[in-house]
Amino acid sequence: MKPIKVGLLGLGTVGTGVVRIVEGHQSDLQSQVGSPIVIEKVLVKNVEKARNISVSTHKITDDAWDIIRDPEIDVIVEVMGGIETTKEYLIEALERGKHVVTANKDLMALHGPEIMAKAQEHHCDVFYEASVAGGIPIIRTLSESFSSDRILKIMGIVNGTTNFILTKMSQEGASYADVLKEAQELGYAESDPTSDVEGLDAARKMAILGTLGFRANVALEDVSVRGISQVTKDDILYAKRLGYEVKLLGIAERQDEHISLSVQPTMIRKSHPIASVNGVFNAVYVHGEAVGETMFYGAGAGELPTATSVVADLVSVVKNMKLGVNGQHCTVPYKEKKLKNDEQIAYKNFILLHVQDKAGVLARITQVFAEYEVSLASVLQQPNPDNPEAEIIIITHDASKASMDKVLKHFEELEVIRKIKSVYRVEG
Amino acid sequence: MKPIKVGLLGLGTVGTGVVRIVEGHQSDLQSQVGSPIVIEKVLVKNVEKARNISVSTHKITDDAWDIIRDPEIDVIVEVMGGIETTKEYLIEALERGKHVVTANKDLMALHGPEIMAKAQEHHCDVFYEASVAGGIPIIRTLSESFSSDRILKIMGIVNGTTNFILTKMSQEGASYADVLKEAQELGYAESDPTSDVEGLDAARKMAILGTLGFRANVALEDVSVRGISQVTKDDILYAKRLGYEVKLLGIAERQDEHISLSVQPTMIRKSHPIASVNGVFNAVYVHGEAVGETMFYGAGAGELPTATSVVADLVSVVKNMKLGVNGQHCTVPYKEKKLKNDEQIAYKNFILLHVQDKAGVLARITQVFAEYEVSLASVLQQPNPDNPEAEIIIITHDASKASMDKVLKHFEELEVIRKIKSVYRVEG
Repeated sequence: MKPIKVGLLGLGTVGTGVVRIVEGHQSDLQSQVGSPIVIEKVLVKNVEKARNISVSTHKITDDAWDIIRDPEIDVIVEVMGGIETTKEYLIEALERGKHVVTANKDLMALHGPEIMAKAQEHHCDVFYEASVAGGIPIIRTLSESFSSDRILKIMGIVNGTTNFILTKMSQEGASYADVLKEAQELGYAESDPTSDVEGLDAARKMAILGTLGFRANVALEDVSVRGISQVTKDDILYAKRLGYEVKLLGIAERQDEHISLSVQPTMIRKSHPIASVNGVFNAVYVHGEAVGETMFYGAGAGELPTATSVVADLVSVVKNMKLGVNGQHCTVPYKEKKLKNDEQIAYKNFILLHVQDKAGVLARITQVFAEYEVSLASVLQQPNPDNPEAEIIIITHDASKASMDKVLKHFEELEVIRKIKSVYRVEG
Repeated sequence: MKPIKVGLLGLGTVGTGVVRIVEGHQSDLQSQVGSPIVIEKVLVKNVEKARNISVSTHKITDDAWDIIRDPEIDVIVEVMGGIETTKEYLIEALERGKHVVTANKDLMALHGPEIMAKAQEHHCDVFYEASVAGGIPIIRTLSESFSSDRILKIMGIVNGTTNFILTKMSQEGASYADVLKEAQELGYAESDPTSDVEGLDAARKMAILGTLGFRANVALEDVSVRGISQVTKDDILYAKRLGYEVKLLGIAERQDEHISLSVQPTMIRKSHPIASVNGVFNAVYVHGEAVGETMFYGAGAGELPTATSVVADLVSVVKNMKLGVNGQHCTVPYKEKKLKNDEQIAYKNFILLHVQDKAGVLARITQVFAEYEVSLASVLQQPNPDNPEAEIIIITHDASKASMDKVLKHFEELEVIRKIKSVYRVEG
């Protein structure tokens, strides 16, 4: 049996996991696909560097083109990250008839449609299960298992760093800054954590999930983004008292043919299954018209969980090679993308205000909500023990984003309001 | 485009859902597979019966062979249930080159290997996602997404009826008999509930999951079974006090190459994600060597969730037809089945004893555990307010089934023990 030859781009955490699984599970893999799978060449930055894993030196190269242009190599497994240069490599690989397995969410969120089109043109497979939520098989679930359904809503905890931080803040009453520091020391957060904590990483994953779930080309710019850096321990305390947890949720929704996508810290009711997903774990909740409520839970990152998804994709590629059907399983978005405008996007809101502690304030404030036709689910006024102001906590019914923006703008001009302390989307 | 013609066997709950989805989502399905999908003929018991759904009368028949032997029909969708006669239909359908989608767990648990072999022989597909856990895509996940991993443990809440009963007993402190009656009135339990409450339904599903997860032919007889009919509200109260919920868990485990499968009411620690799966919902927890802990949650039954899985399978069949690769995606178990014996099966146990309230009793009891080398994690003795006996609650460390059987047998002969009130497996 002719072995299937793999070119591995990148030998970091995930790349090391891929080598471990392909070598460690070789006989199982061979039983499934009928051929040995061999990692023929590995791209690294520094060929001299000491590593945790032994890869024969003649396989290691720092020249990507030596792999991409090697006619012996059947499949490129890309776990190096990066966008523009990496895209160049993969496009040329596809042009040369090589299949691609990638874990690169940044690349897929930005250039997914172009890469998929190139793959179809050359009858090649591109699989990218590992790009979203590590070991959770959410890509395959959306593209195959729910193929007969209409997805109404996807809510995801798709960034482990921020979920670790929010879980710690919730469980220990710690401040954002302290927990971020701890996460950095533990290696769960980068020294520049911006992409994680400001929600960009989650937004990229939601663009990928939205594209699959709604079968329309969702771009990164279509996802409105707010990160967790402004979340305070007091906000979390208020949330818990009202029966909610604060989670950074990616939310993709459809009503009729109109969709909206966002990432923001959200107060989610504790009884919702996604509210109890803690630490670095990820979960994706999917509500389908027919299937109802489902949730998929697992490790969102890490060497072996992510590599499991990469190697499962590799198995699919090899099976397709044997059957001669590569490039035909791609889910190509076939629906026109219609984004909701701010009048159409609607959800519940939590608002915490610091106000002057005097008669008539609450009446003035509720009047503003009425003016913009935002109806209220609950209102709580209480003295603030720390200062002479009073606190007002309001939870609205579903209100359009446009109306809420007007309410908040009006509040800024209202003398009785000292400060708009915090505003959260509310779910569940 | 030539339409794909489907013969539907059964027009009960799931069959009705299949018609609704195939007709309601026709244009979406057509965009995915490139052909119309037409339900050509429908098998019913009584052609005269009034129905919730309109199916043209010329399509309805009470003669299964009229469908199985119709050369125009490409795919048989079997949602009628039953075992021997149904098997005859499907075997002949496969011999005639028709592909099969089935939701029939009983059939697949008993005759899965024979049906899959017949399918391979005739280059036909057999898909059965809907046979386990309704709308949860666990079959596809085990056979494809985790193809590169080694599954160590599967724990499933795979029977909605018993989970509804146990959830109600736990949340309302109600008795088994009262809740069973309520479940029957609500239509969640059959008038003869034996198959559900005695664990047989769950055992069939675990045989299917075990076969896929361990890639060995697991038979129904390999699954040891205990149902929930002996679970008392007191047991659940004790469990909760100790931080556990009682769930009917199917558990399939592997150590090295040896496997064991069982279904039993189990005390599962509340912090485990599967402990908070309530009501008629199902969940399957999968622990893979590489992927780590994952869980899949959703509706385990019902018209549309189950039909979603059936129609997703139908889409897979049609895609394979277009590619000419039917019958080649079957996961055929290739490993020899090695079952653990009672010496090798080990887990934690909860034991509640009623004992004589006098000196030396606890010493006598712990001596028995020591004799059979069962070590104890915790022991609690307390007076029983209702009668002159004392209660002893013991939780063991992992103990072999063989040793525990000996301990319990010895207890039956021990005069100081009035009654072995209850024994549960403990997880998490």
